[in-house]
Amino acid sequence: MADHTISRRRLLGTAGATGLALGAAGGAAGYAAASSDSSDSTGGSRAALTSLGTDEVMFHGKHQPGITTPVQSRGHLIAFDLAPGAGRTEAAALLRRWSTTAKRLMAGEPVAGADTDIALDAGPSALTVTFGFGHGFFRRTGLEKQRPAALDPLPDFSSDRLDKSRSGGDLWVQIGANDPLVAFHALRALQREAGAAAKVRWQMNGFNRSPGATARPMTARNLMGQIDGTNNPKPSDDDFNKRIFVPEKADGTDPAWMAGGSYAVVRRIRMLLDDWEKLATKAQEDVIGRRKADGAPLTGGTETTEMKLEKTGAGGRLVVPLNAHARITRPDQNGGAAMLRRPFSYHAGFDAKGEPDAGLLFICWQADPLKGFVPVQRKLDRGDALSEFIRHEASGLFAVPGGAGSGEYVGQRLLEG
Amino acid sequence: MADHTISRRRLLGTAGATGLALGAAGGAAGYAAASSDSSDSTGGSRAALTSLGTDEVMFHGKHQPGITTPVQSRGHLIAFDLAPGAGRTEAAALLRRWSTTAKRLMAGEPVAGADTDIALDAGPSALTVTFGFGHGFFRRTGLEKQRPAALDPLPDFSSDRLDKSRSGGDLWVQIGANDPLVAFHALRALQREAGAAAKVRWQMNGFNRSPGATARPMTARNLMGQIDGTNNPKPSDDDFNKRIFVPEKADGTDPAWMAGGSYAVVRRIRMLLDDWEKLATKAQEDVIGRRKADGAPLTGGTETTEMKLEKTGAGGRLVVPLNAHARITRPDQNGGAAMLRRPFSYHAGFDAKGEPDAGLLFICWQADPLKGFVPVQRKLDRGDALSEFIRHEASGLFAVPGGAGSGEYVGQRLLEG
Repeated sequence: MADHTISRRRLLGTAGATGLALGAAGGAAGYAAASSDSSDSTGGSRAALTSLGTDEVMFHGKHQPGITTPVQSRGHLIAFDLAPGAGRTEAAALLRRWSTTAKRLMAGEPVAGADTDIALDAGPSALTVTFGFGHGFFRRTGLEKQRPAALDPLPDFSSDRLDKSRSGGDLWVQIGANDPLVAFHALRALQREAGAAAKVRWQMNGFNRSPGATARPMTARNLMGQIDGTNNPKPSDDDFNKRIFVPEKADGTDPAWMAGGSYAVVRRIRMLLDDWEKLATKAQEDVIGRRKADGAPLTGGTETTEMKLEKTGAGGRLVVPLNAHARITRPDQNGGAAMLRRPFSYHAGFDAKGEPDAGLLFICWQADPLKGFVPVQRKLDRGDALSEFIRHEASGLFAVPGGAGSGEYVGQRLLEG
Repeated sequence: MADHTISRRRLLGTAGATGLALGAAGGAAGYAAASSDSSDSTGGSRAALTSLGTDEVMFHGKHQPGITTPVQSRGHLIAFDLAPGAGRTEAAALLRRWSTTAKRLMAGEPVAGADTDIALDAGPSALTVTFGFGHGFFRRTGLEKQRPAALDPLPDFSSDRLDKSRSGGDLWVQIGANDPLVAFHALRALQREAGAAAKVRWQMNGFNRSPGATARPMTARNLMGQIDGTNNPKPSDDDFNKRIFVPEKADGTDPAWMAGGSYAVVRRIRMLLDDWEKLATKAQEDVIGRRKADGAPLTGGTETTEMKLEKTGAGGRLVVPLNAHARITRPDQNGGAAMLRRPFSYHAGFDAKGEPDAGLLFICWQADPLKGFVPVQRKLDRGDALSEFIRHEASGLFAVPGGAGSGEYVGQRLLEG
């Protein structure tokens, strides 16, 4: 985890003293970027001061950025399919171009050639760019033998209402930044560089709380008003690396090129907010099993207090109902499965019926989707009280290789292996 | 202009010392909110320190908030039509509900009844809510005699490609905040309170640079990479109030209930970025008449230097071409017309052709649209070099009444007049 430092930089131009001023007080775990003296980019549980524009995340490292980086306030997801006729050579050239550009963008520098100038006045704003490969990528590039078994299609879930045109893709790019123009600038630069090699398949925009909007050391809140991500594994956990990242030394499960990589499951989860908001707060809390205000279990304590699964209340009923979302998703109820959830909220206006097209761009990271996402989702599929208020509308599963070493591009070990 | 102070507040909950810490260095005019000791909410040209979450804009005042308030990083526009059967009584009740809620939201307080809790941990984050009335509102409420002449439909422009379903509306609400969840919380609360009285007609999302992403004292940049808004009138200008606001004492032009109000022209201006970005920077600068890097006129100086309209260069050609956008829009070339531009950028993904559905949610404010927006747009319509790179896709014109006094609701002087 010690490979992505976030540094402070002077803003380009006339920043002077103000460019180095201490930023908004950001005590919120998951929002505040780590300060420059830290070798831990995840922020974790400690408070950190951050100046929004000057935060810089390093491109090179053991792992790609954007996995353990504190979640940013603005995100873009974009998937591409390789163009007809484009194969391994074109894909390698594209990943090389993209890596060069991602490194420049993350340093707050203009891209080579004609820059759009959209980000010209801003600092790096904690920009991260993360690249992944979908199932189809390996067939298109003649690299089927290198395709990880972990990329086998996810099982069908009964609650899925998947739109294929917004699912999957040969290539996936995740962009996050604490400034919307910096994020859009990166999206546009990377999309243009796809050139004739790849075509946009789908694209989604997301957001999270702005750094500084809250001073509470609290996990993110979603558009249902819930604190979301309480049980996320922490980089300080002994088994964090093992659960989230493919080992750096091959253990026979994954191909060697995935060393230090991870698998991302991406789900566009629509929230049926009109229905949800008709429930009283107490009824919402029974669906989740936690208090809305502070995320504490209904059995008491604070957000991080262990849930008392057997505790009963009036009439001998379980205080946390059997179908409560937080009960079902507890790692110790799922064979120790753990995934790192790093989502963005989304809101794409209203649909034809006048209902909000809003919810969660759920992104979770794990060393093995069959141990991380799948068993939890299977359980949710059978008995989660939350399921009647959400709808999975799109899905993706991507192999995200380890970070590029100095002079290397992302995916080089696959494409030139 | 002295009526909307922005104050600092402790964040709710456990903020303590961090809630009052100085925020990201925000020297950027138009981004940084004024500090608490200022009676001028517009920020203007002076640098100010701001803690993003704690900034609060006052609901009550001579003018509504969200007009001279520094533009926020997140915005929602939503238009409603009154429901069949809803008339003046229902409209008055709705504006009363909305005003009560807007005041609470802007103070960072939960709304009455069931709050969605989406904004629970955050401060007000400079939230503003602004209400306007469209042409149809007056017929539906039997108040046609009170309809301002200024609401007469805008003339057709040859470059218009207007989508009626995303244009107009009986009621218009503008929401801005420096936190995306605070903005969404407000959108959702106000939309729910419309209840049976009004139905969503259209809704759009926008964004601007985050406070703190840049330390340069610079005007906003749009998705074409241009500095945008250089010639905006400043509240310190002698004639600012006269140009932007309806006089507080009736002068016979506007109905009395519009005292202290303003007219908003809203245009969804799609940018044809694929075409635009094919131009070299020099060609783009000729289209605009200003340098991309710093917004200075092509005839030299800095962003605020007067453009030398007659200056010629090689071959005797004008340095600023006759059809340059910045030449055409200069107030002194348009009978002194002036409007206050306060836009958001938008990006709604890619269209079916794979082109970005992105551009500007252009919002301009003026005491009289026939003196502000219309003459400038007429000129642009005839000979603006920029016109082949943009497309007006939606349009709205709204009468925005003056701010509510203490104990009053917005529009009360119309609805109970």
